[in-house]
Amino acid sequence: MDVNRLNLGLIGAGRIGRLHAEHLAFRLHDARVFMVADVNEIAARQCAEQFNIAQVAKDYRAILENREIDAVLICSGSGSHAQIIEESADAGKHIFCEKPIGVRLDEIDRALAVVERAKVKLQIGFNRRFDANFARVRRAVAQGEIGEPHLLHIISRDPSPPPIEYYQFSGGLFLDTTIHDFDMARFLIGSEVNEIYCAALTRLDATISPARELDTAITLLKFDNGVIGTIDNSRQAVYGYDQRVEVFGSAGAISTNNNFPNTAQLSTASNIQRDLPLNFFMERYVESYLIELQAFIDAVKNDEPTPVNGYDGRVPVVMALAAQKSYGENRPVRLSEFDVK
Amino acid sequence: MDVNRLNLGLIGAGRIGRLHAEHLAFRLHDARVFMVADVNEIAARQCAEQFNIAQVAKDYRAILENREIDAVLICSGSGSHAQIIEESADAGKHIFCEKPIGVRLDEIDRALAVVERAKVKLQIGFNRRFDANFARVRRAVAQGEIGEPHLLHIISRDPSPPPIEYYQFSGGLFLDTTIHDFDMARFLIGSEVNEIYCAALTRLDATISPARELDTAITLLKFDNGVIGTIDNSRQAVYGYDQRVEVFGSAGAISTNNNFPNTAQLSTASNIQRDLPLNFFMERYVESYLIELQAFIDAVKNDEPTPVNGYDGRVPVVMALAAQKSYGENRPVRLSEFDVK
Amino acid sequence: MDVNRLNLGLIGAGRIGRLHAEHLAFRLHDARVFMVADVNEIAARQCAEQFNIAQVAKDYRAILENREIDAVLICSGSGSHAQIIEESADAGKHIFCEKPIGVRLDEIDRALAVVERAKVKLQIGFNRRFDANFARVRRAVAQGEIGEPHLLHIISRDPSPPPIEYYQFSGGLFLDTTIHDFDMARFLIGSEVNEIYCAALTRLDATISPARELDTAITLLKFDNGVIGTIDNSRQAVYGYDQRVEVFGSAGAISTNNNFPNTAQLSTASNIQRDLPLNFFMERYVESYLIELQAFIDAVKNDEPTPVNGYDGRVPVVMALAAQKSYGENRPVRLSEFDVK
Amino acid sequence: MDVNRLNLGLIGAGRIGRLHAEHLAFRLHDARVFMVADVNEIAARQCAEQFNIAQVAKDYRAILENREIDAVLICSGSGSHAQIIEESADAGKHIFCEKPIGVRLDEIDRALAVVERAKVKLQIGFNRRFDANFARVRRAVAQGEIGEPHLLHIISRDPSPPPIEYYQFSGGLFLDTTIHDFDMARFLIGSEVNEIYCAALTRLDATISPARELDTAITLLKFDNGVIGTIDNSRQAVYGYDQRVEVFGSAGAISTNNNFPNTAQLSTASNIQRDLPLNFFMERYVESYLIELQAFIDAVKNDEPTPVNGYDGRVPVVMALAAQKSYGENRPVRLSEFDVK
Repeated sequence: MDVNRLNLGLIGAGRIGRLHAEHLAFRLHDARVFMVADVNEIAARQCAEQFNIAQVAKDYRAILENREIDAVLICSGSGSHAQIIEESADAGKHIFCEKPIGVRLDEIDRALAVVERAKVKLQIGFNRRFDANFARVRRAVAQGEIGEPHLLHIISRDPSPPPIEYYQFSGGLFLDTTIHDFDMARFLIGSEVNEIYCAALTRLDATISPARELDTAITLLKFDNGVIGTIDNSRQAVYGYDQRVEVFGSAGAISTNNNFPNTAQLSTASNIQRDLPLNFFMERYVESYLIELQAFIDAVKNDEPTPVNGYDGRVPVVMALAAQKSYGENRPVRLSEFDVK
Repeated sequence: MDVNRLNLGLIGAGRIGRLHAEHLAFRLHDARVFMVADVNEIAARQCAEQFNIAQVAKDYRAILENREIDAVLICSGSGSHAQIIEESADAGKHIFCEKPIGVRLDEIDRALAVVERAKVKLQIGFNRRFDANFARVRRAVAQGEIGEPHLLHIISRDPSPPPIEYYQFSGGLFLDTTIHDFDMARFLIGSEVNEIYCAALTRLDATISPARELDTAITLLKFDNGVIGTIDNSRQAVYGYDQRVEVFGSAGAISTNNNFPNTAQLSTASNIQRDLPLNFFMERYVESYLIELQAFIDAVKNDEPTPVNGYDGRVPVVMALAAQKSYGENRPVRLSEFDVK
Repeated sequence: MDVNRLNLGLIGAGRIGRLHAEHLAFRLHDARVFMVADVNEIAARQCAEQFNIAQVAKDYRAILENREIDAVLICSGSGSHAQIIEESADAGKHIFCEKPIGVRLDEIDRALAVVERAKVKLQIGFNRRFDANFARVRRAVAQGEIGEPHLLHIISRDPSPPPIEYYQFSGGLFLDTTIHDFDMARFLIGSEVNEIYCAALTRLDATISPARELDTAITLLKFDNGVIGTIDNSRQAVYGYDQRVEVFGSAGAISTNNNFPNTAQLSTASNIQRDLPLNFFMERYVESYLIELQAFIDAVKNDEPTPVNGYDGRVPVVMALAAQKSYGENRPVRLSEFDVK
Repeated sequence: MDVNRLNLGLIGAGRIGRLHAEHLAFRLHDARVFMVADVNEIAARQCAEQFNIAQVAKDYRAILENREIDAVLICSGSGSHAQIIEESADAGKHIFCEKPIGVRLDEIDRALAVVERAKVKLQIGFNRRFDANFARVRRAVAQGEIGEPHLLHIISRDPSPPPIEYYQFSGGLFLDTTIHDFDMARFLIGSEVNEIYCAALTRLDATISPARELDTAITLLKFDNGVIGTIDNSRQAVYGYDQRVEVFGSAGAISTNNNFPNTAQLSTASNIQRDLPLNFFMERYVESYLIELQAFIDAVKNDEPTPVNGYDGRVPVVMALAAQKSYGENRPVRLSEFDVK
């Protein structure tokens, strides 16, 4: 391993894979993408050209077999994550894996066991932890600026639902979208959730959301430290990406607003207005993707723990499964119901 | 009835009774308090002196028997409301009653039956409906400014818990405090709630909250029109009275902030700050108390329906009972479980 | 003098006179209007009926001659203020006079001399000092929350120009409108202005502002304590009454925003918006009118100095004259140029 | 000229020079710094190492003589700008020059004449035009969102004064700091200023500002199109970099707030607060530096006019000289007094 310049293998050249590739090409200086692999070979090739990546493969195993590659970035479909983690660990590669770590608990637990045995680093892509707003809220909670936390609210609404073909791989609202919020809940409060109750609906009409999946939900969380909280999700906020949190405690409260493209306020004969917030995660969270990747690179180079480990990847999946079950059975579900070991 | 100057009888000379008396003495011109009754005769006498009330009684029945009195304001303890409504209706008086309309469903239903038979007006004191912020949100929802409503959030936190002696009459968090929010939920969404799930705790320590009652709660509501919503309650927000709502819909969202004593923003070497919000309901909602009373006076004078009728008083009590039950049994409770008729 | 109920004579039954009458009728309990006088006798009579005023006169001298009247409220046209102050003082009445104290320095100085000789109270109606926002800014400056003040900005824009017939009595932009800001400048900074430079224009078109008077101005002020500041005036802010200040100092800054009818924020597919601010002085400053009048009543009853005295009335007139001169000659004008004594 | 990769020569390896070098090294892909020159050779060498610059020189003439270099970035002291522009144009290099274009009108006019004769591009580094906030305000004005502009306010306060050694090269407050605001004023209003009046003081004490230069100023501007405006400057805003503008017009107003490191709002028992704004130009305006440089590269590559040309560089210098003269003579100064041609 050349600690001056880590060699990474990128698995998956979709939207998020290309974002990491761009950051590594232009904004991060102590690592680079050495090979990119995608079943869609044309996508892999275009990505390589655009971001100066030396080698291209169709099969990600080419990356695992390459001795020059120190670590992999798993940006493939959610269904393949656990399997690729397992193989990557077996190949001795350090691993950065997009969320979710997997879609079934058995495959996750098998993958985590291999990671542990192989003694490789594993970081899960919960990038929002590295966002300036949420990091500030976490700091307030951790440093006692609001005293003991009592109540939590997370608002997490997308500007518009994904294309219909996306749904077949997404695992649904809870595993695809709310999973970020489950991680955020644990991160902000610093305690584990033990019970979940979820109310959810399909509110968008079929022209907007042809898959007729759940698109609107409120999930109620109970934490070990007594905090109770909610997560509010919608697939379509017409005014744009709505990403806010509030934590209330014995000594005060802290809340965040959305991020906007500018601060201008326009006063007209009709109203006082401002432009809509930054529209989606590629704009809103762009800096957080950069910071999380740097954190992974640092952890590998310095042989230190990653800031979001395999356990942090597993728990939100359990929470998503509990939310699904709670919705299906309309009752509060304890996370211990999933302790099958 | 002298339509130029309605004669009111005030039952209960506590904090809220005196507020109404003050408004009637100085700010409302087409009604006056003609007699005040309170079991604490000293309180009644002081109130009469302060607000130019002609007659004083210890027993509220003196009011009911007085032919010159057109209507009563019931501001006594919650436990006596239903009984006094019944007697007042029997005596042919129009009735303005503070919330809650009663604490048991049987007494409420009996009272409502008498009111209906007596053909007197009845208005329940859900004053927040008349607050400029919430009225604006209701208008946005009713006029379709946010399209079809999907999600609702109510934040309703008191600055500090009541004195311990208050609790024995209050009926607890749900009947005393959340009941305002139950009414607000129905008012804002314009649809009935059919199911409630509630998580609640005692988080304040015994020095602040010696009664050890529930002081922190999140209540999840499901409405007939598909909206899902939450109510967030705390007995102690150290930064002051926190009263906000947000409604999210298919075409946008509307939310309100707290009211502040001034708009000044102070920038220092440490931070950018503003003064704390208006501290409690006597300041925050003072105008809404005035407007609701005027609405009652208008309804009586013009023989029109009151804006918050007996049914509007009954439903939030059912919701409070459902929340209590949900908390006790840790399961979602349908309001139909209380349809005992 | 009955200290329990001061008897006031109201001179002028126009908009501002009626506002004071309403406050005295319904919201202030230790004074009342005993007689109202207006050259327009119908206006006087209507005012008396509406606000329960016992006596009506056409000639204000009837008020001055009435032994039962303790104090006068001068709400007549600006041109008559100084003369009526003089006569009122001669008649031994305490005086509350709307701004400006007069329109020529000689008449003002003569009136002030009579007031001093007669030892009556005189308060000038600079009501904005009693507004919660500006009072908060003054407190910050006075208590050193922003350190030594260095810079001041006052934004003071009307929603729309007055009717053309108003102008003939108004004395123009500086004596009619900016005079409030001149007072505010002295009040906030707590130091005297020694030099003024003014740039002004007629920007509104003739359909909106047929008098073709100055309607847009920036006035630069230099204070004895080294502060420099600006006043920004417009006769027409289409979004409503715009009344803001900012004071910057060695340890920070404090600024105020407008007041709004509600705090609701509406997010739509186009923008994030809120309703327009409270529209004009009758809504925006209503509480300040009440507080200033109470302060006058208290000063009379307790024989204490009024919070805005004759000198405070005179200085802003000098400032307005200096601004006019500066505009006319396009040069900075020292206030000492008006020290003709 | 290789239009795929422009070769730039960087003259001056100080703070701003290094910022451009960093952007060119990592974030701009169609140009690079080929040589860096600085009289301080160690600084030049460090800069070259840090940002992968091939060649280093002590004398900037090495850059002008190098045939491979297409354009220069002049980031040296203000006093040398005009001279280096002249020599660079003579050498046929395109020129990006930090503000000010020069410190004396004669040298500026001579330089501009050479630029015109040599037909090279010249762009002046008024980066704030490319800031998202100010660009939004300009768009509102240009597109008529606020109607005809009437009034302008620019707040431009530094967090702390520069080190004393900086002053000897800076040219003083007007040429060093206000010059940005003079450019902003012309840019936002889209009209030329014809007269300036300036009030200024030294308010900071000698421990903070040992040079005893002017540190606090208000400059009043009159524009050809009738707009009047102010610029508010301070060398020390203890709460951080304060950069706001407001334009008021016949159909509304637009204003901007500062930029903050996060949106978190903290409510405590004392107040409602947020963190201080981004502290100085390297953070606040970092994106604008990137965008202006890209605009220069595009103009060179596509042989199009630069967005901020030599004339745009000259006018703010005249304005600064007028402000100096106005302050010195305490009178409004017309810019035509400087038309010496």
